Amino acid sequence: MRAESALPSSTPPRAIGIVAGAGPLPSELAGQLQRQGVAVFVVALEGFADERLLAPYPHCTVRLGAVGALLAALRQHHCRDVVLIGPIKRPHWRAMRPDATGALMLARLGKAIWGGDDHLLRAVVKLLEGEGFWVRGAHEFLASHVGDPGQQGRHSPDQQAMADMRQAARINRALAAEDIGQGCVVRKGQVLAVEALEGTDAMLARCQGLVALAGGVEGERAGLLYKSAKHGQDIRVDMPALGPETIRGAAKAGLAGVGYEAGSTLLIAPDETSALADRLGLFLYGLQL
Amino acid sequence: MRAESALPSSTPPRAIGIVAGAGPLPSELAGQLQRQGVAVFVVALEGFADERLLAPYPHCTVRLGAVGALLAALRQHHCRDVVLIGPIKRPHWRAMRPDATGALMLARLGKAIWGGDDHLLRAVVKLLEGEGFWVRGAHEFLASHVGDPGQQGRHSPDQQAMADMRQAARINRALAAEDIGQGCVVRKGQVLAVEALEGTDAMLARCQGLVALAGGVEGERAGLLYKSAKHGQDIRVDMPALGPETIRGAAKAGLAGVGYEAGSTLLIAPDETSALADRLGLFLYGLQL
Repeated sequence: MRAESALPSSTPPRAIGIVAGAGPLPSELAGQLQRQGVAVFVVALEGFADERLLAPYPHCTVRLGAVGALLAALRQHHCRDVVLIGPIKRPHWRAMRPDATGALMLARLGKAIWGGDDHLLRAVVKLLEGEGFWVRGAHEFLASHVGDPGQQGRHSPDQQAMADMRQAARINRALAAEDIGQGCVVRKGQVLAVEALEGTDAMLARCQGLVALAGGVEGERAGLLYKSAKHGQDIRVDMPALGPETIRGAAKAGLAGVGYEAGSTLLIAPDETSALADRLGLFLYGLQL
Repeated sequence: MRAESALPSSTPPRAIGIVAGAGPLPSELAGQLQRQGVAVFVVALEGFADERLLAPYPHCTVRLGAVGALLAALRQHHCRDVVLIGPIKRPHWRAMRPDATGALMLARLGKAIWGGDDHLLRAVVKLLEGEGFWVRGAHEFLASHVGDPGQQGRHSPDQQAMADMRQAARINRALAAEDIGQGCVVRKGQVLAVEALEGTDAMLARCQGLVALAGGVEGERAGLLYKSAKHGQDIRVDMPALGPETIRGAAKAGLAGVGYEAGSTLLIAPDETSALADRLGLFLYGLQL
């Protein structure tokens, strides 16, 4: 703090840099920070970021491969703290069209790019830190979005759902050791689906067809989606998130609710998410491990 | 053996009972046994068994819920050894329409029916053994179908594929502890898909769309499907199997090959499977753990 106040008054104020992937979280973060009076600058990743949602905030757009342009934009707008937020899919290197710095970085990242997601993200964090940036977690600024423990909204999980949730938590833990997804669907003790590269929405979509195979009947609600962070993962850069889309997908799949690991999952638009769960008759529950 | 030979000559010869689920393995087993001069009697499970393939063998058809009829058929045809073979999906209890014995059995199986697959199968084995039958594994009679260690066919896995295979084996082992599927797809260190209730074919189908997300390019073959038994599972009743359909699915998904745990995986129509892998340019490899 002393260093901050000792800055000469001509030094431009710092902004928090937001490197924006897909979905509504980057714009929610930008809005939240602006409401707190904090300056932001958004680097929207071309082909991933929702530029319509980001339009109200100071921003520029760069290709994922244009690492040099990305670093220059962050520096030019006096960002020291940088938040990486919103999912991106790993493109083929030919599609990346790296700029000069990008090519250098790709070479430096080397094999990490093709390893599990954790390896890549750890390498990206190291790279940014090597360039003098401080990588911060979205949850540090979006405290209101971090899933609380216990029942959210009006509906409670019954005893079977609580048992399913504990089983799902065990499964995610076993998978985390292999750097796989952050979600699975358990229904009355049976594992309907496990998430890998396809993502949560695609996993929920396939559950619609699996409930009948698992002995379910039309209209019956049972089972749940469970999301959690991979243990040992750096939640600064890949914190699991769920929102209205997740609730809608879970409802379509005939599930009774959605569970998440309290304290390490971001709720997108938390009020809307909880209200939608209420309206569709699903529980929303934060498991404290 | 002494007991066998001491039987009075009027005692009808014993037959091996085959309780047939879906796919070609039940008929392959029946054919194999008949060629060895062993009598068989097949109980085809309605809605699952391929009755066209089973037509050449002495058989009857019963509903899954008609447990009384099933036991009576096995007894009437002098079966003591019984093989359960071919996948069945767990139906809803209302669709089972159990007969009197079936209702009794369902009550006795109780919660096991809705637990993981292992719980159910262990309960079914116990039930059959309680009725005086000896449950035998298909691999005891189909030794020629049990996957050998090492390279099958013409194509060899490269170094990356061997690393992917070892990673896949670790994943299946982690999942086995939670009684989940027997398969996953790994491509250059990235986990594309993990199998739960949807089955291997559906998992392979979704990989077609995921390879691009994982940075793959059209026409490039990389990654593999790996199948293994759940460790600690009773391979008498749920041995993983792969065959021509599996090879076709892996090829469509752009994979370089198929790996399996040697000694605990059944190859359906092994010669045809291996020849198809050769023709489509895929390796087929038995990992020795």
